[in-house]
Amino acid sequence: MERANVKVAIWGFGAMGSGMARMILKKKGIEIVAVVDRNAARVGKDMYEVLGVERGDRKPVIISNDFDATITEKCCDVIMTATDSYTKEAFPRLKACLEKKINVISTAEEMAYPQAQSPELAAELDRIAKENGVSILGTGINPGLMMDLLVVCMTGCMEDVESIVAKRVNSLSPFGPAVMHEQGVGITVEAFDKGLQDGTLAGHVGFSESIHMIADAIGWKVDKFEQQMSPIVTQVDRKSPYGFAAAGDVAGVNMTGQGHVDGEAKILMYHPQQIEPEMVGVQTGDYITIKGSPAINMANTPEVEGGIGTYAMCVNMIPHVINAAPGLQTMIDLPVPRAIMGDFRDFIK
Amino acid sequence: MERANVKVAIWGFGAMGSGMARMILKKKGIEIVAVVDRNAARVGKDMYEVLGVERGDRKPVIISNDFDATITEKCCDVIMTATDSYTKEAFPRLKACLEKKINVISTAEEMAYPQAQSPELAAELDRIAKENGVSILGTGINPGLMMDLLVVCMTGCMEDVESIVAKRVNSLSPFGPAVMHEQGVGITVEAFDKGLQDGTLAGHVGFSESIHMIADAIGWKVDKFEQQMSPIVTQVDRKSPYGFAAAGDVAGVNMTGQGHVDGEAKILMYHPQQIEPEMVGVQTGDYITIKGSPAINMANTPEVEGGIGTYAMCVNMIPHVINAAPGLQTMIDLPVPRAIMGDFRDFIK
Repeated sequence: MERANVKVAIWGFGAMGSGMARMILKKKGIEIVAVVDRNAARVGKDMYEVLGVERGDRKPVIISNDFDATITEKCCDVIMTATDSYTKEAFPRLKACLEKKINVISTAEEMAYPQAQSPELAAELDRIAKENGVSILGTGINPGLMMDLLVVCMTGCMEDVESIVAKRVNSLSPFGPAVMHEQGVGITVEAFDKGLQDGTLAGHVGFSESIHMIADAIGWKVDKFEQQMSPIVTQVDRKSPYGFAAAGDVAGVNMTGQGHVDGEAKILMYHPQQIEPEMVGVQTGDYITIKGSPAINMANTPEVEGGIGTYAMCVNMIPHVINAAPGLQTMIDLPVPRAIMGDFRDFIK
Repeated sequence: MERANVKVAIWGFGAMGSGMARMILKKKGIEIVAVVDRNAARVGKDMYEVLGVERGDRKPVIISNDFDATITEKCCDVIMTATDSYTKEAFPRLKACLEKKINVISTAEEMAYPQAQSPELAAELDRIAKENGVSILGTGINPGLMMDLLVVCMTGCMEDVESIVAKRVNSLSPFGPAVMHEQGVGITVEAFDKGLQDGTLAGHVGFSESIHMIADAIGWKVDKFEQQMSPIVTQVDRKSPYGFAAAGDVAGVNMTGQGHVDGEAKILMYHPQQIEPEMVGVQTGDYITIKGSPAINMANTPEVEGGIGTYAMCVNMIPHVINAAPGLQTMIDLPVPRAIMGDFRDFIK
């Protein structure tokens, strides 16, 4: 008897959802059975057509805007939700998926560790997942790996940890208009300050999640969490495919965050994001420095690109999430992530 | 009611066993209840005296050479065995521990992935562990983290993996006479070649384990495994606390290994170990380069020191091993390692 493929649905077919789809279509033992999206330009079209991928002898997957009609109980093994950044906004959608008795992987940054800012919603998701015999995980490149799980993993060879610095210096140049807008690329310093005041500039979402994930993993208690956001003002004109910042204007956002433990800022995060950092001699990369015994001084250069890193993490975690015990899971509860280069069915217990 | 401490026994009280002991004695919610060792200079003495650590109001722990009299059924939650490098030699001791219904952590390099070279013994250990309701894990800095688990973890953000290079360039200077002898430090090139022939030079044990761990984790099949060992001949006199190599003699060992997948050498390992590498301008470190999408180019400099890294990995994995399902576990099955900075009891489920 032939083994059935691992069946996946995708909710939200923007850059992340479609990135996951393209990746899954190249893999063995896994198939996409449904796509839900609200974008009128895509609804009603065949997924393969939207992706520009040859369908071959596969069945069409018509993109639907009707979740309940499309995602029926146990219609797939896992649903990938790429619709939100915040736990509170994602919650009703995640709940709806769990109640269809389907495992869930979410790209929402806050869902990488919902215990950090929404402990009640985290407990509620855990309860609903258990009630329905499925599991739910939030992941991505950051939060999810570079500024948190990787830090945790490196502390594993340490006898004593004194303080942690995680720094992610990345380029926004590969990103599209939405990210340019969210990060304030090209606006004036005045407009940036206004965006900060009225909360329209998102900046990076995830410092609280990363810091609490690390602290909980190693047994530290975060007494206080703080973060700051400031404009990266360029001294030269910078141009990327979708962005332009004139000299004197904003080329990106510098975010800094601190987790205080026993009254000291022991977990420090630095995350400057900008277009064309090379123009001003900035070396992009992911950097982890841990004081303690032994010390860690790690660099990955250039940085792992955020888009591909996020959708790859989500797709690669599919077997772990299907295999997991029912409930809310986090990256520090599950086995280490890994590229799935073989047949997905071989990874399912 | 006060919660009982996590109880640990240690078998083998050389550099690794005593290193674990020192580390455990600094931690909360965990205690050492028994030590077994065969070294006549230590047997019959109090562990605290041997370690040179103030005993305070703790009970003495008399080092015994009688395993059966000392390690009684369920006398502790976990036993740390630091007695061997090879699965075959460790096997009877590991079996004896499991049959006392005690979880086991082994420093034996081959036990980091016994499936690689001793699949029958691995299956047997799995069976015995399950029969006795306990789990067993082999770990250390390498194999165990730097050249395998960390590689696996980084592939987690990749859509496609083409090839992997793991390089560990380390200094043997901190090590004692036993390591100098095993690695051929100070001997002539002729003596080195003779040692290679008759198998008395150990070199690094673990390439087969690291390569199979990576391949199994990501779903590659290793068709062929090869390794080579060559002398690092020094051009200058080099002196370390326990070693000396005159110009023209051997300052250490260069090991290389290859895992072939689909007829290509896709997993490459480089591990030159020598005393005083700085004297000849060698920058020590752990390096991981992964070709694929996205590429990984990671460096941790200087390298994580092997001794502390190994005993810290073993101690930090205690909660995961106690919490694990019965059977043989490996680093790719369990959640990521992490420094245990809080009370060990808080990490036990």
